[in-house]
Amino acid sequence: MYQSKIVVTFRRSILDPQGKAVENGIHSLGFDKVRDVRIGKFIEMDVYTANRTEAEQITKEVCEKLLANPIMEDFSFTVENHKHP
Amino acid sequence: MYQSKIVVTFRRSILDPQGKAVENGIHSLGFDKVRDVRIGKFIEMDVYTANRTEAEQITKEVCEKLLANPIMEDFSFTVENHKHP
Repeated sequence: MYQSKIVVTFRRSILDPQGKAVENGIHSLGFDKVRDVRIGKFIEMDVYTANRTEAEQITKEVCEKLLANPIMEDFSFTVENHKHP
Repeated sequence: MYQSKIVVTFRRSILDPQGKAVENGIHSLGFDKVRDVRIGKFIEMDVYTANRTEAEQITKEVCEKLLANPIMEDFSFTVENHKHP
C-alpha cells in the first residue's frame, strides 16, 4: 500500500485573497519579516496497490480529474511506501 | 530570504468529513483503490531574514499562534533558501 501526499496551489498569476488575509493576520501579530503568503490545499490518501507506478498513475489522474482545477491550479505529489501503524 | 512550506492537518483522532466527501467523489470516478482521504491546509510564505534558524523560529511561532489549532491540528514545515525569479 502507498500513501500519496498532494499539494494543490493557485498559479502564481492568480490572486490569492485568502493568503493576503492570513498575511495581514501574521503582520498584526508582529511578524513583519513574513511576506507573500499563499494558501493551498493538502490532500493525503492511501492507495491500495502493490505497484508504485500504478499508485503514481492513480494519484495523477485523481489530481487531474477531481482535486485540481487545471485552469487556475497546479499540483505536485509524493508517493511513499506505507504501512498503517 | 527563506521560503517556508507548511502543512496543517487534523489529528488522526479527529473526524475529517471533508476528506470523507472527497473520498466519495474519488470512488464515484471509479478509483476504488483509494481510501482514507484526509484534507489539510498548505501554506507557503517568504521569510525575509538571512538566518535559517530565525526563519525556522518565525515559522514555528506563526504556526503555533495563528495557522494551527493546537487542540485539533498538527503542523509540519520545511524552510528552504530561496531567491525570487
